[in-house]
Amino acid sequence: MPKIVTFGEILLRLSTPGFQKIAQAESFDCTFGGTEMNVGAALVNFGFDVTHVGVFPDNHIGKKAKAFIRKLGISDKNIHLKGQRMGLFFLETGAVSRASQIVYDRADSAFVNLDPSWFDWEEILKDADWFHWCGITPAVGEKPAIALLEALKVAKKLGVKVSSDIYYRSNLWNYGKTPQEILPELASYSNVILASRKNIEEIFGIISTEEKGKFQDTAKKLMAQYESIEKIIDTERIQISASHNRMNARMWNGQEYLKTGNLDITHIVDRVGTGDAFLGGFIYGQLTYKDDLKSLEFGNASSALKHTIPGDQNLVDIAEVENLMLGDGSGKLKR
Amino acid sequence: MPKIVTFGEILLRLSTPGFQKIAQAESFDCTFGGTEMNVGAALVNFGFDVTHVGVFPDNHIGKKAKAFIRKLGISDKNIHLKGQRMGLFFLETGAVSRASQIVYDRADSAFVNLDPSWFDWEEILKDADWFHWCGITPAVGEKPAIALLEALKVAKKLGVKVSSDIYYRSNLWNYGKTPQEILPELASYSNVILASRKNIEEIFGIISTEEKGKFQDTAKKLMAQYESIEKIIDTERIQISASHNRMNARMWNGQEYLKTGNLDITHIVDRVGTGDAFLGGFIYGQLTYKDDLKSLEFGNASSALKHTIPGDQNLVDIAEVENLMLGDGSGKLKR
Amino acid sequence: MPKIVTFGEILLRLSTPGFQKIAQAESFDCTFGGTEMNVGAALVNFGFDVTHVGVFPDNHIGKKAKAFIRKLGISDKNIHLKGQRMGLFFLETGAVSRASQIVYDRADSAFVNLDPSWFDWEEILKDADWFHWCGITPAVGEKPAIALLEALKVAKKLGVKVSSDIYYRSNLWNYGKTPQEILPELASYSNVILASRKNIEEIFGIISTEEKGKFQDTAKKLMAQYESIEKIIDTERIQISASHNRMNARMWNGQEYLKTGNLDITHIVDRVGTGDAFLGGFIYGQLTYKDDLKSLEFGNASSALKHTIPGDQNLVDIAEVENLMLGDGSGKLKR
Amino acid sequence: MPKIVTFGEILLRLSTPGFQKIAQAESFDCTFGGTEMNVGAALVNFGFDVTHVGVFPDNHIGKKAKAFIRKLGISDKNIHLKGQRMGLFFLETGAVSRASQIVYDRADSAFVNLDPSWFDWEEILKDADWFHWCGITPAVGEKPAIALLEALKVAKKLGVKVSSDIYYRSNLWNYGKTPQEILPELASYSNVILASRKNIEEIFGIISTEEKGKFQDTAKKLMAQYESIEKIIDTERIQISASHNRMNARMWNGQEYLKTGNLDITHIVDRVGTGDAFLGGFIYGQLTYKDDLKSLEFGNASSALKHTIPGDQNLVDIAEVENLMLGDGSGKLKR
Amino acid sequence: MPKIVTFGEILLRLSTPGFQKIAQAESFDCTFGGTEMNVGAALVNFGFDVTHVGVFPDNHIGKKAKAFIRKLGISDKNIHLKGQRMGLFFLETGAVSRASQIVYDRADSAFVNLDPSWFDWEEILKDADWFHWCGITPAVGEKPAIALLEALKVAKKLGVKVSSDIYYRSNLWNYGKTPQEILPELASYSNVILASRKNIEEIFGIISTEEKGKFQDTAKKLMAQYESIEKIIDTERIQISASHNRMNARMWNGQEYLKTGNLDITHIVDRVGTGDAFLGGFIYGQLTYKDDLKSLEFGNASSALKHTIPGDQNLVDIAEVENLMLGDGSGKLKR
Amino acid sequence: MPKIVTFGEILLRLSTPGFQKIAQAESFDCTFGGTEMNVGAALVNFGFDVTHVGVFPDNHIGKKAKAFIRKLGISDKNIHLKGQRMGLFFLETGAVSRASQIVYDRADSAFVNLDPSWFDWEEILKDADWFHWCGITPAVGEKPAIALLEALKVAKKLGVKVSSDIYYRSNLWNYGKTPQEILPELASYSNVILASRKNIEEIFGIISTEEKGKFQDTAKKLMAQYESIEKIIDTERIQISASHNRMNARMWNGQEYLKTGNLDITHIVDRVGTGDAFLGGFIYGQLTYKDDLKSLEFGNASSALKHTIPGDQNLVDIAEVENLMLGDGSGKLKR
Repeated sequence: MPKIVTFGEILLRLSTPGFQKIAQAESFDCTFGGTEMNVGAALVNFGFDVTHVGVFPDNHIGKKAKAFIRKLGISDKNIHLKGQRMGLFFLETGAVSRASQIVYDRADSAFVNLDPSWFDWEEILKDADWFHWCGITPAVGEKPAIALLEALKVAKKLGVKVSSDIYYRSNLWNYGKTPQEILPELASYSNVILASRKNIEEIFGIISTEEKGKFQDTAKKLMAQYESIEKIIDTERIQISASHNRMNARMWNGQEYLKTGNLDITHIVDRVGTGDAFLGGFIYGQLTYKDDLKSLEFGNASSALKHTIPGDQNLVDIAEVENLMLGDGSGKLKR
Repeated sequence: MPKIVTFGEILLRLSTPGFQKIAQAESFDCTFGGTEMNVGAALVNFGFDVTHVGVFPDNHIGKKAKAFIRKLGISDKNIHLKGQRMGLFFLETGAVSRASQIVYDRADSAFVNLDPSWFDWEEILKDADWFHWCGITPAVGEKPAIALLEALKVAKKLGVKVSSDIYYRSNLWNYGKTPQEILPELASYSNVILASRKNIEEIFGIISTEEKGKFQDTAKKLMAQYESIEKIIDTERIQISASHNRMNARMWNGQEYLKTGNLDITHIVDRVGTGDAFLGGFIYGQLTYKDDLKSLEFGNASSALKHTIPGDQNLVDIAEVENLMLGDGSGKLKR
Repeated sequence: MPKIVTFGEILLRLSTPGFQKIAQAESFDCTFGGTEMNVGAALVNFGFDVTHVGVFPDNHIGKKAKAFIRKLGISDKNIHLKGQRMGLFFLETGAVSRASQIVYDRADSAFVNLDPSWFDWEEILKDADWFHWCGITPAVGEKPAIALLEALKVAKKLGVKVSSDIYYRSNLWNYGKTPQEILPELASYSNVILASRKNIEEIFGIISTEEKGKFQDTAKKLMAQYESIEKIIDTERIQISASHNRMNARMWNGQEYLKTGNLDITHIVDRVGTGDAFLGGFIYGQLTYKDDLKSLEFGNASSALKHTIPGDQNLVDIAEVENLMLGDGSGKLKR
Repeated sequence: MPKIVTFGEILLRLSTPGFQKIAQAESFDCTFGGTEMNVGAALVNFGFDVTHVGVFPDNHIGKKAKAFIRKLGISDKNIHLKGQRMGLFFLETGAVSRASQIVYDRADSAFVNLDPSWFDWEEILKDADWFHWCGITPAVGEKPAIALLEALKVAKKLGVKVSSDIYYRSNLWNYGKTPQEILPELASYSNVILASRKNIEEIFGIISTEEKGKFQDTAKKLMAQYESIEKIIDTERIQISASHNRMNARMWNGQEYLKTGNLDITHIVDRVGTGDAFLGGFIYGQLTYKDDLKSLEFGNASSALKHTIPGDQNLVDIAEVENLMLGDGSGKLKR
Repeated sequence: MPKIVTFGEILLRLSTPGFQKIAQAESFDCTFGGTEMNVGAALVNFGFDVTHVGVFPDNHIGKKAKAFIRKLGISDKNIHLKGQRMGLFFLETGAVSRASQIVYDRADSAFVNLDPSWFDWEEILKDADWFHWCGITPAVGEKPAIALLEALKVAKKLGVKVSSDIYYRSNLWNYGKTPQEILPELASYSNVILASRKNIEEIFGIISTEEKGKFQDTAKKLMAQYESIEKIIDTERIQISASHNRMNARMWNGQEYLKTGNLDITHIVDRVGTGDAFLGGFIYGQLTYKDDLKSLEFGNASSALKHTIPGDQNLVDIAEVENLMLGDGSGKLKR
Repeated sequence: MPKIVTFGEILLRLSTPGFQKIAQAESFDCTFGGTEMNVGAALVNFGFDVTHVGVFPDNHIGKKAKAFIRKLGISDKNIHLKGQRMGLFFLETGAVSRASQIVYDRADSAFVNLDPSWFDWEEILKDADWFHWCGITPAVGEKPAIALLEALKVAKKLGVKVSSDIYYRSNLWNYGKTPQEILPELASYSNVILASRKNIEEIFGIISTEEKGKFQDTAKKLMAQYESIEKIIDTERIQISASHNRMNARMWNGQEYLKTGNLDITHIVDRVGTGDAFLGGFIYGQLTYKDDLKSLEFGNASSALKHTIPGDQNLVDIAEVENLMLGDGSGKLKR
């Protein structure tokens, strides 16, 4: 059973029931989410052994978060219960042409205030097969950025594969550094990178000069600069409405440009965490099939299925994903 | 901030959760609705100052209704707590080819039994920019009809713009008068009228003799008879199913025939009050853009968005409406 | 008012709220289902007099099931409260490409352990117009199979019409008999049979040799063997996804091949019991219209509407079905 | 199995969840209540055969009420689905020193507007052992009063025992008659009367001249006037708070004054319908034990247990009542 | 109608349903609380005109809080929608010997970061009869402390009565000042002070030298130092358990020592905000009865009743309080 | 951190919300319970390392149970996912004099059908400090009994302390053996035994001949027969009602008779699992305090607190228990 390590912040998610506006809610459904942990959760359901590394406040909410990841099947032995508060967000689920909205309240969380010395990465990563991180971690604070860099150096030393989700939202970067200063070094320790052409342009300053195939072009140029990077992947979401999206995924793996077909999700239940479900599926594919296109397809099917599940995590198993991946989207009742 | 006054009955709405039939419900979700108040609620969310004039029973249900409109942001200072009972209705929400059903229990309500002398319209309408009424009010009882006529005379005197929703359902008229006796005089005090061609034919006896453009034709003839009427508007609902509707709106403004494009609502959450959301949006447009087509488009987008919100009122803000009005129905997550 | 008798097992249904996976549920919605009883429930809503014959355990769950069928309007006077346990199943409702899943826990139920001598079929079926059974009953145990055969013999003697749903799932047959040993004799007492071509091949060993019209061909051959069988019907479900199905129905009645048009159910709420809703509608048609195509169409519309109702039973009335059957799938609000 | 007939109005009950004030409720729990039907419901759970005679509106709410009484196990064959509306009430459940509050909305209901000719009392009461009525029925309208008198005359003719709950609330009598004009004649057809000394004084004008034993004294005098009356019973509720009541019951049976001990209900869940639970238990006792004190005690225990059950009806069985009646109030877990 | 102004922070309250531990909750019930606003809410229900002065973040949560106070009937015209976050707390409701627990997450809220120049106290307090503040406000930040002092100076100038709840929790004072530096000056502008003997000792350094009557002794000494203070009040909570408390209140008014009897709350529903309910009731008494003992008794009864209502605010009306105050704690059903 | 191993069956618990009768429930709250696992859950909350050994069916319900114990913080690494069904029970929560009722449906579960060879007790118990079992395990089937005996032999060999809850319910023993044949040998491997005098009499045939101190007398005699037994403990539940119990605990430890004071639980929320909460607390005490009376008192306080928590497990921490154990049952709010 492959061993996966993820590192990142986890937030308390408070969402309105049904399609209520926040203005209407008399209660909030409560769960937890965090992009790296979500990736791990998908992998647990595909049978992998997953450990999440993080920091939760030392109070009832932090303990609740620990119990939550255990329930998912993720090991909590590298969770530190220290600090004052858990970041959180309020989610209002949209429909059709009304967008979902998120109100964040995540400043000054226990994770942001972590001490990098708490993590013994040699111990954490020994025997690990894969380490996954996301661009949010170095965005929210200098200390998380330092801890992440240390983790990446150890991963490289130990030969652990590294995947990175180059998620970039400018309003997260408030501690004095820019993503351009920080992300390139972190990326240089990664083997697989999820990044759109726009991310590559903005963060790495690489501009495509091609008319067509801009993604491949920027991917090639990025891989030319960073020898560790073996594969660059991206997903495309065609948003017909808040209730109907269409998803595909693509990759430049140094030799080939690969692209999946589209999957339609015509009646979305909850789209939060669907990108993480893609990555979870993709990593499963990389460690199982050793076939890049199948990996993308497994990831894309995993992502599509996540849209039908409430909460941030994908909870489907391999059979459910493979069924869709092999073309059966009929949703036939399983007795 | 423009000041809006609305006048009309408010009913307690008791709806089944989920898609339960009334036969199945073990509880009813509880809210309040009233077409004129719903128009006002939409306008509050667009930043206007709204007062609703009405009568609720002097009991816990009446007080609950007062608190409800305050929560919406509507002033309750012209609500009279007098009388015995609140009209109510039970709502069973349909889906696909199963229609929603409403069971009314509204006879002999506090509103129907109002005393027109309770309302000091000079005081209520002073400083008002707009007064809105609906054809239900003069239908449910002679006293509401009298009070409404008094309001309209004062509005005219004070130069307050008047809009009217010529809503006509024959089974509401049970007190001995016909809509043909009552509605024309009331319409003669109105500046903007929401009425279908069929309404114009039935109530005003105006029949189009054109092959095409019948709406414009009846509108022109109606405006020829009532000099106060400046604009006649109408909405069209194409019902693919109870879960999927398509909406547009049109107007004859004395010079031009204007019509919006269609908006598809493919996954309806709650269609009650969507006509009121149109009117709220249209009035916003009239007082903001001074552009008739933009007013219709803002109204149509407002109506489309309402279909995604549980309850009778539209709770979206200007940004959400403008986003859709400018063509973005993608429902992209707002962080 | 025609009198209908149904016989079969009823299971406790525990379903996850919303679209939760079983892994997520903190509570289960609770109802009861049973294919023959579901057929009866539809018929009660169409105004028929229905009695269900069955066995529930003599405990609070069995009594709850009795109250449930009474609430539906089905007579419980032929329910025996004897035995230890009620069979049950857990239902996880899927969406889009994620299939619904059922976890059964029905072994060794009170029904399976019934004593055929408990049922006085002469008394039960006197005055009855129609008796309905399903292939699950002889599958779950030898005693139910014996009781069913006795019922069928009495029905024949008394001239009660018999319909049969040749439902065949191999994993239900665990008591040592095969469906091929048991079902043909039971079918020989039936007048109307719901069976797919595949059922006819597998159970009766009748293979079509035609290129086209295989259903009619097998139907004809089956009717040639069993003189009691007057009509063979079948439904077709085209599964676009778990949220979107398309339904039609067809029949060979000895003279003609009849087929309905397709009905689209674009936003499925609950598809469990939709086949039973078809049969309930079809039987209504047979006893009301005396027109086979209209019977199929009423059944198909009944089935389509069931997809919009939570729970196992169809609760729509004749007006709702006829409205759809006559082509109005617009779901217009009924006030 | 003794056969019981009850006659009276049923109201839709809409209660706030938890201990919410009506002002707070976003939903109302929905059930039905009616004092005579509640008496019948208790008797069903004690194994009797119960028919309720009533009138519900011919709409979804009326049909829901029919299904409700069937679920309870009461026959609905004498329910007429005619008229416009179901009377209803809103219930706010109090605690400790905060009283529960009821807001009634019951005027002009289908029951009030019944036509006495709808009821064929000879048919309804044939084979009946007991008929129960309450003073609310003749209070709410002249037509119900007429129908009730007809029923009582037939009951007398057929030798059916009659019990009456002389419930008197002055604000219910709004149709021009006083209880003093109506109730004495009705009481004269009754064999068992539940009435407090105060009821006897107010309605029958019988004043006790004794220092002590006033209840017995007024009871004796009343029985002297009406030869049909065999037993006068009364319950006493000592209200320590809304959460803690103490109950006992007493009787003058012509020979003896009998009184039960007190039962404490220290943690009340729902006290609505507890008087009806007493009467149901008492009638069970009369028809089972033929012992007046045991009847009172069974009734008192039945009433005490009802306080622990949400809704208007008592749902406990004989074993639960006898257990408490025999002195075991320990609430030991039954496995 | 007396006019009341309150000033202070409002927090989002997220409480577990039922008696769940935070570890168990899958959803949180959502309401808002704030000690000064809670006092105002009680007064609204007693018929007063209440304005709350505060600062909420300019997001959906801040707007929801505004709607919440409007629903309560409190004016929101002096609420500033500015800043980033709303302070919040998680509440786990205890029972019997298990204490309720609160997890605060209130640092760095919009209120703490207010700008004192936003408030035009001359305008806010003109026509006001009473101003209420609490010791939490100057504890949470220097800016709130400054704004409060300005308000108090204006209140004094305009002759507005001032009441103060000297609430002191050391862990709230984190901005460098001590309560001993700040509270005495603020108290010197107040006419009525709610403070325990312990508060008086800790904050004002006044120690009683009496054996008995220590409260009166410290109260006298405090009033000797601050001429504005006319009355010192205190409440006593005898905690039999988390489910059963006993409450009384007392006062030194310069002349007399007054004390109410005890009120038992034997089945507590929600004790949060019960001290505020006391103060609301007390202020009502002061402005209505002009009788100190009656004021205390009205306050004590108001507090007792609040224990039976979910949420932070008292929602009972005058009749409910007077009923208990006059000795009727029987909780008799009101029809 | 002491290491605890528990072994036993886990059942799915389906309980009615509120105080509903099973007849009323439209949904069941869902959790899991098992006496040995419940003991472990309490110990996790006291900071111990707990592993549960068990067998769940290989389906979604079995996986849900695994996730459940992980969420509690119990290791699931010795859970076998094999077999067909999970035993379950329906719980109806009583109040006051109405007893709670349990309907079991546990026959033929995956646990009952376990294969003793699945468990490598040497591996499971190495490094363990304590092993706990209950008399239900050998009652439900011969295979569990064999597996348990093997575990006990290994525990003895490895010097692991063993506690046993001699729970005896005759209707559980259905596989041909009697408790008298099986339990004595199992008890002979135990160091601490929870058993009432009645258990000792029935199972071990030891009858006290003393007038007073019968518990001590039978305990002494039992310990004389089984040299491994060091301590015999018992709890006493005085049932004032289903809502109010009083608990104490006692012990004979070979030298002394020790007994705690009574703890009153006046408003019971959920009494299922309170005996397990006692044992969890007692084992904590034994491994922490090395003081028998303190162990009993910690256990008794743990049990008392469990009565206030919904579900089968105790979730309080050490501070909450010690607070009560030291005499503070006031339930003061913790901020």
